[in-house]
Amino acid sequence: MKTLWKQGSELHPTFAPINGCLKEDWFLLPCELKLQRAHALTLRAAGILTEAECASIIDAVEAIAREFTGACAPDSPAEDIHTWIEGQLHSRVGDAGKKIHTARSRNDQVATLLKMFVIDAGGRLGERFRSLAVACCARAKAWSDLIFPLQTHCQFAAPGSVGFWSLRYASAFDEVRRGFERGVSSWRRACPLGSGAVAGSSIPIDRAIQAKQLGFEEPSVNALQATSTRDECLELLGIAVRGALHLQSLATDVIAFSQTPFSWTRYPGAFGTGSSMMPNKMNPDAMELLRGECNAILAAHGHAVMLLKGLPSGYNRDLQCIKPVVRDAADKLEALCEMTTEFVKALDFEPDRLAQSMGMGAIDATLRMERKVLEGMPLRDAHHEVAEEVQHAATGDGGRVEDATGADATAYRTFGGASPAQTRRIAEALLVELEQNQS
Amino acid sequence: MKTLWKQGSELHPTFAPINGCLKEDWFLLPCELKLQRAHALTLRAAGILTEAECASIIDAVEAIAREFTGACAPDSPAEDIHTWIEGQLHSRVGDAGKKIHTARSRNDQVATLLKMFVIDAGGRLGERFRSLAVACCARAKAWSDLIFPLQTHCQFAAPGSVGFWSLRYASAFDEVRRGFERGVSSWRRACPLGSGAVAGSSIPIDRAIQAKQLGFEEPSVNALQATSTRDECLELLGIAVRGALHLQSLATDVIAFSQTPFSWTRYPGAFGTGSSMMPNKMNPDAMELLRGECNAILAAHGHAVMLLKGLPSGYNRDLQCIKPVVRDAADKLEALCEMTTEFVKALDFEPDRLAQSMGMGAIDATLRMERKVLEGMPLRDAHHEVAEEVQHAATGDGGRVEDATGADATAYRTFGGASPAQTRRIAEALLVELEQNQS
Amino acid sequence: MKTLWKQGSELHPTFAPINGCLKEDWFLLPCELKLQRAHALTLRAAGILTEAECASIIDAVEAIAREFTGACAPDSPAEDIHTWIEGQLHSRVGDAGKKIHTARSRNDQVATLLKMFVIDAGGRLGERFRSLAVACCARAKAWSDLIFPLQTHCQFAAPGSVGFWSLRYASAFDEVRRGFERGVSSWRRACPLGSGAVAGSSIPIDRAIQAKQLGFEEPSVNALQATSTRDECLELLGIAVRGALHLQSLATDVIAFSQTPFSWTRYPGAFGTGSSMMPNKMNPDAMELLRGECNAILAAHGHAVMLLKGLPSGYNRDLQCIKPVVRDAADKLEALCEMTTEFVKALDFEPDRLAQSMGMGAIDATLRMERKVLEGMPLRDAHHEVAEEVQHAATGDGGRVEDATGADATAYRTFGGASPAQTRRIAEALLVELEQNQS
Amino acid sequence: MKTLWKQGSELHPTFAPINGCLKEDWFLLPCELKLQRAHALTLRAAGILTEAECASIIDAVEAIAREFTGACAPDSPAEDIHTWIEGQLHSRVGDAGKKIHTARSRNDQVATLLKMFVIDAGGRLGERFRSLAVACCARAKAWSDLIFPLQTHCQFAAPGSVGFWSLRYASAFDEVRRGFERGVSSWRRACPLGSGAVAGSSIPIDRAIQAKQLGFEEPSVNALQATSTRDECLELLGIAVRGALHLQSLATDVIAFSQTPFSWTRYPGAFGTGSSMMPNKMNPDAMELLRGECNAILAAHGHAVMLLKGLPSGYNRDLQCIKPVVRDAADKLEALCEMTTEFVKALDFEPDRLAQSMGMGAIDATLRMERKVLEGMPLRDAHHEVAEEVQHAATGDGGRVEDATGADATAYRTFGGASPAQTRRIAEALLVELEQNQS
Repeated sequence: MKTLWKQGSELHPTFAPINGCLKEDWFLLPCELKLQRAHALTLRAAGILTEAECASIIDAVEAIAREFTGACAPDSPAEDIHTWIEGQLHSRVGDAGKKIHTARSRNDQVATLLKMFVIDAGGRLGERFRSLAVACCARAKAWSDLIFPLQTHCQFAAPGSVGFWSLRYASAFDEVRRGFERGVSSWRRACPLGSGAVAGSSIPIDRAIQAKQLGFEEPSVNALQATSTRDECLELLGIAVRGALHLQSLATDVIAFSQTPFSWTRYPGAFGTGSSMMPNKMNPDAMELLRGECNAILAAHGHAVMLLKGLPSGYNRDLQCIKPVVRDAADKLEALCEMTTEFVKALDFEPDRLAQSMGMGAIDATLRMERKVLEGMPLRDAHHEVAEEVQHAATGDGGRVEDATGADATAYRTFGGASPAQTRRIAEALLVELEQNQS
Repeated sequence: MKTLWKQGSELHPTFAPINGCLKEDWFLLPCELKLQRAHALTLRAAGILTEAECASIIDAVEAIAREFTGACAPDSPAEDIHTWIEGQLHSRVGDAGKKIHTARSRNDQVATLLKMFVIDAGGRLGERFRSLAVACCARAKAWSDLIFPLQTHCQFAAPGSVGFWSLRYASAFDEVRRGFERGVSSWRRACPLGSGAVAGSSIPIDRAIQAKQLGFEEPSVNALQATSTRDECLELLGIAVRGALHLQSLATDVIAFSQTPFSWTRYPGAFGTGSSMMPNKMNPDAMELLRGECNAILAAHGHAVMLLKGLPSGYNRDLQCIKPVVRDAADKLEALCEMTTEFVKALDFEPDRLAQSMGMGAIDATLRMERKVLEGMPLRDAHHEVAEEVQHAATGDGGRVEDATGADATAYRTFGGASPAQTRRIAEALLVELEQNQS
Repeated sequence: MKTLWKQGSELHPTFAPINGCLKEDWFLLPCELKLQRAHALTLRAAGILTEAECASIIDAVEAIAREFTGACAPDSPAEDIHTWIEGQLHSRVGDAGKKIHTARSRNDQVATLLKMFVIDAGGRLGERFRSLAVACCARAKAWSDLIFPLQTHCQFAAPGSVGFWSLRYASAFDEVRRGFERGVSSWRRACPLGSGAVAGSSIPIDRAIQAKQLGFEEPSVNALQATSTRDECLELLGIAVRGALHLQSLATDVIAFSQTPFSWTRYPGAFGTGSSMMPNKMNPDAMELLRGECNAILAAHGHAVMLLKGLPSGYNRDLQCIKPVVRDAADKLEALCEMTTEFVKALDFEPDRLAQSMGMGAIDATLRMERKVLEGMPLRDAHHEVAEEVQHAATGDGGRVEDATGADATAYRTFGGASPAQTRRIAEALLVELEQNQS
Repeated sequence: MKTLWKQGSELHPTFAPINGCLKEDWFLLPCELKLQRAHALTLRAAGILTEAECASIIDAVEAIAREFTGACAPDSPAEDIHTWIEGQLHSRVGDAGKKIHTARSRNDQVATLLKMFVIDAGGRLGERFRSLAVACCARAKAWSDLIFPLQTHCQFAAPGSVGFWSLRYASAFDEVRRGFERGVSSWRRACPLGSGAVAGSSIPIDRAIQAKQLGFEEPSVNALQATSTRDECLELLGIAVRGALHLQSLATDVIAFSQTPFSWTRYPGAFGTGSSMMPNKMNPDAMELLRGECNAILAAHGHAVMLLKGLPSGYNRDLQCIKPVVRDAADKLEALCEMTTEFVKALDFEPDRLAQSMGMGAIDATLRMERKVLEGMPLRDAHHEVAEEVQHAATGDGGRVEDATGADATAYRTFGGASPAQTRRIAEALLVELEQNQS
């Protein structure tokens, strides 16, 4: 059984490899097997399959799972995974296999599989970002007293701590995790399966059975919409983009902290490489590759958008092309998350270099200004006064007006500010929350 | 008061117009005024402002609101709206105006304003998509018995109704609405205000006061994260992209339905134009422009992503450039939604043309196949049998095997399928839901 | 020899697979071999290699070419292709292999390889678009008398011929071919090799030798620029985007011409598939996949742009990530071009259906108007007069004012217009040109 | 005269503002006026206009030019600039105005106008990049002896000079200039005017006349292609993207050089601003905004691509939306170029800080290694030996093995390398070339 439809002519040799997608589809196998089982039970309930037929199909599904899970895609003339699995069932259980495609189409099948994959990937990515947030929280606590200059506009700005910086990312990655969680729970609402090719079916199956079996809340409400769209793919990629952008900022920060005149980091050797020509070089490759590879995630969203742009209602074959986009983006982001989690654990800082940097950029100026405010001077006057002092000091003896010791950061009093105590408190609270919700 | 900082030299004439953004910022005025009020109350509670100072500021804020709401941006040398408003307060209330910027920076201010705008825009867009979904539901009910060929791969596929098609979009737009709702509720969680430039402040203000005043649940937990990111902008644009893609599909469908050999629609003249050269033309311009203009929404997301890519921690001036991107996308999508809602109300169909189309493409084949299945034939056998019949009919006498009357669509039995009864039932349920949740 | 640099610690298992790129680089092998040869000759001229050392290296390069060309990437701990090949040379020719990396770095090496690949790919793609343009020209001649309605705004507009439509694409694809030709000739200007890591070298090699050997006009003028940028990749992808957009329009046209109520095409069965559920369906999959797959080309340009955005001067490891983007886009576009060429040859039309369509949409109106103009009536008056006639006919007896026979298209008199004679003349001229310039 | 076509019903108030584009089109006025003149001459030659009619039209065109050039778009009910100008001509010259639209359509008109605009903008941008390249060359000469550490992977790598760095951008911007030049010369090949709505015209005008008048080489060869595509817009935007990416890298470099621990630059005060909260801050705003605003150029290309994706043959109204995309990108890039040129002239460096940096990062290591190579040691052995020396020095006494004085950069011997002499020589040669080709 090569195709599910009556074929009049051989596919042209330039077209066949573009048409065939068994290898591309193969990552959907685990979802496909669950779907077959759920559909068999639904057909059984509708009286299309007998009890025995249903059991034989479920046995065959389990056998296929045992044989093929984790394996490479088989060499087969089947044009896609749906054709391959129907062929497998047919050859293993005979006529019952010819009934399995009743009241369904590849259109609703692939829509369902992609939604299942996206739910799965969203859950997995949520967990990866949880682990990464946990690692950042742990570092935030450990580094809460490691004082260093915070920057804005890439200029030294005000005192803070490495822990406060790490907490930034803990909180960013936790937001990404929440995004995936909200996504997963909304994708679970409606199951496309049973939408058929475009209009449902005249075979009176109970779609609620398969929806329930596959972990959805209920069947989708419109068969045309269910088979035409890939909204959950877009949404997954959109959340992934936000995660990738935060990873890229983290990479940019670490690369900047590692620049020769900074030398704030003890960049972990296991995440860097050297130069083929320059014997003096050790480079922060892991962070550069993190920044570089994340562009594939950003591009994936744009790719999916272009693919969907202007498509008419009803399944269009263009939709095939979204599958590798979503799979590759999810896989890549997962690997990058894992690497970053390990990197954050391995990263260390040079206290002496940080301390030395505290003497630059007059970073105590704002706190000094605020002392004047607390003594009653209007902010704008205090601002101008301190600005003159800073300028005078810079052009005068070139020294600093006053020592900006690490103690400065303890002066922060506002919630979410850079004081070590705040950083510890918030990191602990976030850790508790991250652990409570764990799936 | 031209700048809030001590200026050593005039800005270069090639730089000043790129730096100044009062006109670009002006759309944030309503949010800015609310923010000033909330901040004054917070400074009052912290003892930085006296009762009288606070009252005078709030009076001034109200006066500014009366004078400037709805007006164009004033001609002013102020570099941005934050500078302009501090200048206004200073000139209206004297020294108290010099205190208003205490324990805050333009960095947390603009982060807060954008979040407020995005919450507002998200709410507004949610309502627009609700109205659009309501209009599509109403049409779904009215058109539920208007039978026509559903298509897949742009080929006639199976019988359905125009109402079923309209319900597709009702359900799609309702999903978009839900997306905006989820977005708004998550953006409301954390208020950036009080994060200062990057590290919070040593002035012990209670950030919870301003957060509450501005409609947020609580202050943000990390000042560095709060001032460095624009996640809510990305998320708003991401949802907008999904809305825009559905609008583009709707446009594509209507344009296709209006093609000369289809002529299914009575395209409303108030939404089309003619040709300057060809006297015979009336074109579906509104739908082409809908498809065309939506690309600005798609591009806006990509624009924001590129802008944020690789930015280091701490406010960077690049972030200024995201403001018009978000505003223009929100405004454009709102206008397109409104036009589409009116268009959907004005659109009509040609029953005769639809009926005539029912005789093409052997679109009863699937239902015929399913009758054989209900009589006990395995699906795959029935599929091959009907395929042969169709092929024979096509190459034989060129006629159809059997009449595919409008009655066919009533044969659908599955939930969410194309039967007129299903369409009516689901449209009604959706209408109830859309009206209940109305804000 | 695992790395070219002194390694202090093992790479972390989460980082090693992201760092290693031998498999990803493998497509550069043919270019890498040529480069080694050219560099050996250059080092020989500079006296770094003896005659015998140079000969032994060239022998080894040829042996590697024989063994590995066309093979899969070997299993090797080498982190990239440059490391692998230096290791191979070292193990095959001993100490001379340790000298081959003199006066060069992987930075200038990879910049050169990518430029060589892009020149090669640009040439290959130019040839593919030439073949496609030739096929479209041939069809333009064959179909020049096959009259059908041209459309604007997806509405029947004016008479033309299928040949005229085919000539549109011949001319579009010829433009793309010219773009690749211009690109290739500009990429050949400057050879990056010899730029070293960032600054050139103190070993006085004559870069002109290697530039000449590798087919470039001269060495690049600034080592920092040569190693920092990937402009030729962007430019290749930019031309590819224009090619892909034309392919997508062609796909859209054919899909539209194949719609059930049109049925203008005899869609070639070897480029379509059927439905798993609907026995009546034959779908234009090749054209849908062409439209779908081309999005990968569009996305590749955006991907490369995001990757390069904001990178500082000097090689950054992010640049590694551009390699698969360029390779995959070039390969995909080549395959799609080949398929489209074969498709265009196999495509046919239904003369009866085309003729029948000529009776719709009053498509003779413009020519009728122009007859009045030739008789002396001002255009705008003639336009309004014919518009009234058309409207009257449509709302009156529903018939057409006058028969728009195929003869109509012969009325066109302007250069480049839709008359069959023009189409033939221009197609022939273009064919001559396409054949003359053939590489 | 409100519309050029017979209007049955008023446009819907939600549609009219989306449809009307007189204000959006207004930037095309200078091109539109030239086009009217050229078309009048062509119609005169074809005998459609009398000598007197033609003269009166040309007089009217000149009068309109005098009245409206440089002015804002007038308040007018005209839906677009083509309608407005036909209305103007009609009201100024009577019946001859009713003839001006003979043998043309708005479709070929707007295609021609956009091509004219793109040719113009390409020429203008080429000149801007020329000026910028000239400024970079001048600085390259002035800074050729200002030695500083070149970086790769954001790590100090090897000695070079600020002049060598500046020359990088001179050469990059010169490449962009060449790109625009190649573009302009290819866009000039074919003139769309006379293609009519889609098929040319039966009025026998000589399209060569108007092509020549408007500065094109010849009329376009296929009317359908000429009216369906916007390739020149894409190509202009593609070159602009490459220019924008180089500008962003320049910005990133300057921002990095200005970081507090670097403090290499004397950042010009006229291109920066201060902080509203932190009295110590002066920020490199011009460079951050340059990096930020350039994203609009990057996004514009993506926007145009999405717009064109999947459009069918023949003019589609979606194409209207590309006009502001191209105009805004060209205007923005021009303004950013001008600012950057002035910035480069105003930028200065701190010699003491640069000199101090030369003692970091063992940046003499490669040259030291190459000395060993010149003494006969195989490169790979020399590399390992020096690597050990560097490591020993770093972990031993913490000092440097040997002084890396500015003299080091003079050791470079290869063409295009970082030696001051090379930088001067190449900068001078480039300056000569830039001045010779000036338009």
